Amino acid sequence: MRDLSTDHRWLSLNTATVRKQADFVGIVEACAKKGIRVVSPWRDQVAQVGLDRAVRAVKDAGLDLSGYCRGGMFTADDVHLQEARDDNRRAVDEAKALGAPCLVLVVGGLPQYSRPGSVASKDIGAAQRQVEEGLAELLAYARAANMPLALEPLHPMYAADRACVNTMRQALDICERLDPGNSGMMGLAVDTYHVWWDFEVLAQIRRAGQKRLLAFHVCDWLVPTKDMLLDRGMMGDGVIDIPHLRRAVEAEGFAGYVEVEILSSDWWGRPLDEVLDTTIQRFKTAV
Amino acid sequence: MRDLSTDHRWLSLNTATVRKQADFVGIVEACAKKGIRVVSPWRDQVAQVGLDRAVRAVKDAGLDLSGYCRGGMFTADDVHLQEARDDNRRAVDEAKALGAPCLVLVVGGLPQYSRPGSVASKDIGAAQRQVEEGLAELLAYARAANMPLALEPLHPMYAADRACVNTMRQALDICERLDPGNSGMMGLAVDTYHVWWDFEVLAQIRRAGQKRLLAFHVCDWLVPTKDMLLDRGMMGDGVIDIPHLRRAVEAEGFAGYVEVEILSSDWWGRPLDEVLDTTIQRFKTAV
Repeated sequence: MRDLSTDHRWLSLNTATVRKQADFVGIVEACAKKGIRVVSPWRDQVAQVGLDRAVRAVKDAGLDLSGYCRGGMFTADDVHLQEARDDNRRAVDEAKALGAPCLVLVVGGLPQYSRPGSVASKDIGAAQRQVEEGLAELLAYARAANMPLALEPLHPMYAADRACVNTMRQALDICERLDPGNSGMMGLAVDTYHVWWDFEVLAQIRRAGQKRLLAFHVCDWLVPTKDMLLDRGMMGDGVIDIPHLRRAVEAEGFAGYVEVEILSSDWWGRPLDEVLDTTIQRFKTAV
Repeated sequence: MRDLSTDHRWLSLNTATVRKQADFVGIVEACAKKGIRVVSPWRDQVAQVGLDRAVRAVKDAGLDLSGYCRGGMFTADDVHLQEARDDNRRAVDEAKALGAPCLVLVVGGLPQYSRPGSVASKDIGAAQRQVEEGLAELLAYARAANMPLALEPLHPMYAADRACVNTMRQALDICERLDPGNSGMMGLAVDTYHVWWDFEVLAQIRRAGQKRLLAFHVCDWLVPTKDMLLDRGMMGDGVIDIPHLRRAVEAEGFAGYVEVEILSSDWWGRPLDEVLDTTIQRFKTAV
């Protein structure tokens, strides 16, 4: 297991963590100043400043990327299916332009939430099948672009409105069906927040192995959690044994960046400097 | 699949659904008046009126029981372990006195939440092992009392503070280890709210089979869910395809009561009559 306590060279900042404090360019500049040498941008934050400007900002600051967030939302009714397809191909292209090592995928829940305007459905089995079809199709496009797809199993409390792929077992079953040769083009983004509760988490990390472990995200689970989306915790403030999970992925050979992604109204309300300083400090002591 | 649309003879009311509107005796009387012939009492509601009074109320009203809620909370530090053990044995005795067909178990999360005052831990694996030890010990006691134990996998969002058994797969693995002969003394309470999201839910219902399906609870998942504990939905108000899941358990031979259990500040704020009338109506149309 790597020693992260002495510097933060393996820290990546997911830009959603400070989305309220600055625009993408501002975040990139602040990271460079703090010695954070890696980011993982969100699409809407990139779109806000323009893709070209975002690419230039990353290059000018000399930053690396740990991923691009996010494609997915595959579930849609017939009317919105082409929109979903086009949108995902654009996400691959953008990830490529930015030099991201993978495109993170949040697959979508029921179609009415995934692609608003879609006819409402309660058929989560159908949604899961549609996700797999959408993934298969996108994989062909991603292969041509040489952009690995990182399927992110989301916590089951997001099954209805964000992602109906909710465990590592489910995600790896899909990977093995769509990419049986383990080509390196399809794997997982493992986020401690989403998987920590799973009695199989260690077994599934072993099953994934190095080649399917494309990204490792950290944040903490607060008790109580006051909001399902926006009350994620800074590492060390909650109940997840984060080092235990990091040890498990590193035992498989994961040697990439550890990405901090905290969606939190609390942290969004604090100054950018404070969030970045705390992130760096906790990265060294609680990850 | 049974036709529930013409009467509500298979409806059981979990008494937590109207815990703010009346005490246990009041709930029993209101149920009898509405033709609800089955209840599933919570321990604290029984304790409030006294066990003897509760037993008499059930008998006087001629009601049946579909379960007794709840034993469990096995996770504790050494100082609180005996308390957990004694408490669970009392729960078996009370279930017996009330004539419940099973004791529903919510197994506990991390010890500091399960048995307050316990030393804090982040080791959810240890909690899971302790749950299994506690279950094994209680099973011996329950066998002697001929009281089946219904392990309830809770939604993963409760892993930290309520139950670290969160999927049917996990619960059935435990059942098979502790009761390999499928004696009828250990099975599951399946609640649509907790399991609907699981890609394996149908496969695990088949795996459980009739003998392990000891209880079937229904309520709905609201989008958005404003509170993790107290914003469960009345059947039909959310996104769960409840009839689909009922069909699956009945295909295995489940022929017991369908228990409505809704923890909701919203419904707790409405008159008892309105909640019971709505429950009966939705039972006929959305279950």
